[in-house]
Amino acid sequence: MMRIALLLVAALCLKAAEPVDSIWSAKYVVTMDAERRVIDDGAVAVRGERIVAVGKRAEIERLYKPRRRLARPQSLIAPGLINTHTHAPMSLFRGLAGDLRLEEWLEKYIFPAERKNVDAEFVKWGTRLACLEMALSGTTTYTDMYYFEEVVAAETKRAGLRGVLGQTVIGFPAPDAATPRDALARAERFIAQYRNDPLIVPAVAPHAIYTTPDDALKASRALANRYGVPMLIHLSETKRENADSLAKRKMTPTAVLDSLGALNGRTLGAHGIWLDGNDLRILKERGTGLAHCPSSNSKLASGVARVPRILAMGIPMGLGTDGFAGSNDDANLFEEMDLAAKLQKVTNLDPELLPATQALAMATITGARALGLDKEIGSLEAGKRADMITVMVNAPNAIPMYHVMAQMVYALKGADVNDVMVNGREIVRDRRMLTLDSVEIGRKVSENQARISESLRH
Amino acid sequence: MMRIALLLVAALCLKAAEPVDSIWSAKYVVTMDAERRVIDDGAVAVRGERIVAVGKRAEIERLYKPRRRLARPQSLIAPGLINTHTHAPMSLFRGLAGDLRLEEWLEKYIFPAERKNVDAEFVKWGTRLACLEMALSGTTTYTDMYYFEEVVAAETKRAGLRGVLGQTVIGFPAPDAATPRDALARAERFIAQYRNDPLIVPAVAPHAIYTTPDDALKASRALANRYGVPMLIHLSETKRENADSLAKRKMTPTAVLDSLGALNGRTLGAHGIWLDGNDLRILKERGTGLAHCPSSNSKLASGVARVPRILAMGIPMGLGTDGFAGSNDDANLFEEMDLAAKLQKVTNLDPELLPATQALAMATITGARALGLDKEIGSLEAGKRADMITVMVNAPNAIPMYHVMAQMVYALKGADVNDVMVNGREIVRDRRMLTLDSVEIGRKVSENQARISESLRH
Repeated sequence: MMRIALLLVAALCLKAAEPVDSIWSAKYVVTMDAERRVIDDGAVAVRGERIVAVGKRAEIERLYKPRRRLARPQSLIAPGLINTHTHAPMSLFRGLAGDLRLEEWLEKYIFPAERKNVDAEFVKWGTRLACLEMALSGTTTYTDMYYFEEVVAAETKRAGLRGVLGQTVIGFPAPDAATPRDALARAERFIAQYRNDPLIVPAVAPHAIYTTPDDALKASRALANRYGVPMLIHLSETKRENADSLAKRKMTPTAVLDSLGALNGRTLGAHGIWLDGNDLRILKERGTGLAHCPSSNSKLASGVARVPRILAMGIPMGLGTDGFAGSNDDANLFEEMDLAAKLQKVTNLDPELLPATQALAMATITGARALGLDKEIGSLEAGKRADMITVMVNAPNAIPMYHVMAQMVYALKGADVNDVMVNGREIVRDRRMLTLDSVEIGRKVSENQARISESLRH
Repeated sequence: MMRIALLLVAALCLKAAEPVDSIWSAKYVVTMDAERRVIDDGAVAVRGERIVAVGKRAEIERLYKPRRRLARPQSLIAPGLINTHTHAPMSLFRGLAGDLRLEEWLEKYIFPAERKNVDAEFVKWGTRLACLEMALSGTTTYTDMYYFEEVVAAETKRAGLRGVLGQTVIGFPAPDAATPRDALARAERFIAQYRNDPLIVPAVAPHAIYTTPDDALKASRALANRYGVPMLIHLSETKRENADSLAKRKMTPTAVLDSLGALNGRTLGAHGIWLDGNDLRILKERGTGLAHCPSSNSKLASGVARVPRILAMGIPMGLGTDGFAGSNDDANLFEEMDLAAKLQKVTNLDPELLPATQALAMATITGARALGLDKEIGSLEAGKRADMITVMVNAPNAIPMYHVMAQMVYALKGADVNDVMVNGREIVRDRRMLTLDSVEIGRKVSENQARISESLRH
């Protein structure tokens, strides 16, 4: 009898010591689960690429025996932030031109700069810089639309970030493809190469209805569906895009896409500022996700998306930083959360719109839903990928802290991020990027800047 | 002949070695002088409380012999930033409540929290925390409106910051004065005490026309003019303030103040969102300065001030962070510059509005002008007070850098500030506050948070 009891106790003890790779603990764990639980004195246990358990620190410590521990009693743990729209390599054009009308900005600066500079080497260093900046400010997954996307993917893996990466298909000669047909072939090779990658979700990215011909839009959709990957596209970003579409085709951009069947599958539309009621009904029906880019939409004066209405309809809208070259000069999702919330309030004169919890959801679980990845990322829950960050809560800008989620949106900064884990791998520790050489990046960025400046003189 | 030549050379060498207290050098010096010069490889020489010279590093090093040197080849030097409107002690209420209508926010949270908690000790620790946060993010001068302003002044001097500090005069019993008459007496004692201080500009701060009776507004003006100090007041912050004034008095708030003679002297009006054309003509004529608070105006959904028009009329409008308790949950002027520029663009659908140079001016020289201090601070020029900051330009969010001033507004962060000098005294070095004990502040803030939370439960 005694022996059996002892064996039972021993079994319980063994159970109490289930081995895991690591336990992260902190003052608060912001789960972003369905109940939006914030756990005081909490912890997250990780094995391999996934979260094993989330709970009170004492409980987690009792149940799991980690090989590594990270204790952050002066920080919070949150899901890694999700950027649903950017053009990472354009970091090398950061602030190249700004405070200009879109046409002037594109035609005088961005297009010439791209024509003269964008090649695989440019994409490599631009992506590496962007990954460094994003990881250090708490982004764990980002969504990209650019050229040479296989280089973007290689760099993203090197950094250890998660990427939904879209190879651009556009109707004019691009740096990596002379025709849409070439671009589609490139996209297919890229998708085939990365379709089973643990970090990369390859995608096809027809630029927009006004730059990508109808047959290429249809072919992009078919390609995406053939491989079960997302299609990424700019959608109703400017008033002019909408006006031109209505004038030429008597349909909104969304209706054009739908008439081509291009929304029949996993799709992410970026911006979505000028969507009307009918557009939203179409997007809802097709299960399309959206990316809201408040900094870019403000700086380029594109307008303000009707985020509260979109979210109320159940259309998942995440947050995006957009590119760096005058549309938004950094890639910091803390600023996008803060601005998204404030912009709705001030433009509608209603302070209750887009409360902090909703803004934080956009940067995490709702963004994951927009990308069709909410089963895998976006919250801290057992079974999900271990994508998480720690953020200091004892900096002068962080104290006192009455409401953890509101503080994340309105007071904490990208610079307060201490540690980052993606897919179970620690890539930032104590604000230092473990996977990239920031000194080398600085040197290469400097060389690129000199070349780009020189190229624009001629 | 030879001897005379030698003497001449010696004299030149002696001149070349004019002693100064310190030389700060950096990759760029952003002067914000009338020509908005940015000096590559520049330096600033300081003696006592003032700037002696600004120029190329080689030239400054040739002409001056410093006792101390700070070389920052990976940073820029800029004028210290100027916050034209805040309520520093309210830092202890940071994020106490938000995403609420103004009335609910004030009546359910802020007023009860103030009634139950604001005393000299509260003001002491709240100010100390705010000073720490402001200095670390590059603010060297700030403008305050609160209670126990003599405590605010003592704390500001302890931190080593410059303050334009207004003792509140309000029509209901306040934490430090039962009546407006008591408040005015307090204000006069405060002004008399600090009128000749090198760091503090004392001021009287009638709260607003809707909270401070007419006779107290007139008495505040008279008091300010008697001592030659500024009067600070909230002005046309909300649509309701304007509507009520028009309904009750058939005049806008500005016209009310003017009819009382309350604008006849140095005045700073905070917010100025709902000013009409006639108001602006009055303010221009009276030489009134304004404080624009884009974060607060957005979060509280108060509206967007017509900044480009105001600046075009030559009315000096600076930037303010406003308080911390739900109106803006931090005190970071880098964010106000960025938001000020973006907000004008997006709400007017015009990306050329409020370009970066103008936003940076608002945070420096134009802010100084709004406070009537532009002879003393706001730019780096010989003869001015030595109020300056260094900001790293090699962080991943800062590179490449094509346009220094635009980068300051759109890409650099408060967290990139390395060093801060106010009135010739170094108060931040390598991101560490030299004048305050941040551990002690953290502990006291924690104690205060517990007390405040407890007080709101009853």
